[in-house]
Amino acid sequence: MTKIDAERLEEGNELLIDFEKLGKVAQCGEALVPVAVQDADTKEVLIVAYANETALKYTLEHGVAAFWSTSRDELWVKGATSGDTLQLVEVRVNCEQNSLLYLIRLLGEGACHTKCADGTSRRSCYYRRIKDGKLEFVE
Amino acid sequence: MTKIDAERLEEGNELLIDFEKLGKVAQCGEALVPVAVQDADTKEVLIVAYANETALKYTLEHGVAAFWSTSRDELWVKGATSGDTLQLVEVRVNCEQNSLLYLIRLLGEGACHTKCADGTSRRSCYYRRIKDGKLEFVE
Repeated sequence: MTKIDAERLEEGNELLIDFEKLGKVAQCGEALVPVAVQDADTKEVLIVAYANETALKYTLEHGVAAFWSTSRDELWVKGATSGDTLQLVEVRVNCEQNSLLYLIRLLGEGACHTKCADGTSRRSCYYRRIKDGKLEFVE
Repeated sequence: MTKIDAERLEEGNELLIDFEKLGKVAQCGEALVPVAVQDADTKEVLIVAYANETALKYTLEHGVAAFWSTSRDELWVKGATSGDTLQLVEVRVNCEQNSLLYLIRLLGEGACHTKCADGTSRRSCYYRRIKDGKLEFVE
């Protein structure tokens, strides 16, 4: 993704939803489930990512949120490079045992890789809502 | 899924995570993104499901949470048969525009298809946490 593409996707108000996402995720060759990540204190939903057995095991053993990076095809320990580590409180499992919910505490600035105007990481990836066919910033 | 299988998966304390889930979801042939669903008032995460363009359009037009059923391969308007409708408050989109967050209000008993001891629908699908390699009920 070029810088211009990222800017348009992440900081714009155009609705450009990539419905091909799960097809691409499946193509990475790993057996994965989606993971919703929620702040244990504020209850904000911060990010949705993917985990395989390796990522879940790492998360439980090390007490920090880990995922499987479907673009880099490798274990992704959130915050390992950015410092925005997510300290694990607990892992919830859904009724049918095919998705996870990580309850966490932010040790860094936020869970999103995008930045607020002041240069800090946004807390949540869900900083825009759909309104009249466009995206509107909510924070 | 037989009744015994469902009982074991949904009401047991064995960790039986189906990591093949996203592979199966991708095979349904629809272009989909994951959707986390959160109670707009209590902030509980209730369910994670999947939406294609049709489901998102239905959700926005009718003001109720709709998904794509990857098992039945059809539009799934939550509550259409159970009565457990989820009234839409807003749809949030993540930074990379490849997942959704529906903020909703419960019009029925809950968002989960499983039942509490008193026979009412559980509010959330995330009623168990992982503890020492097993599942523990949290509500």
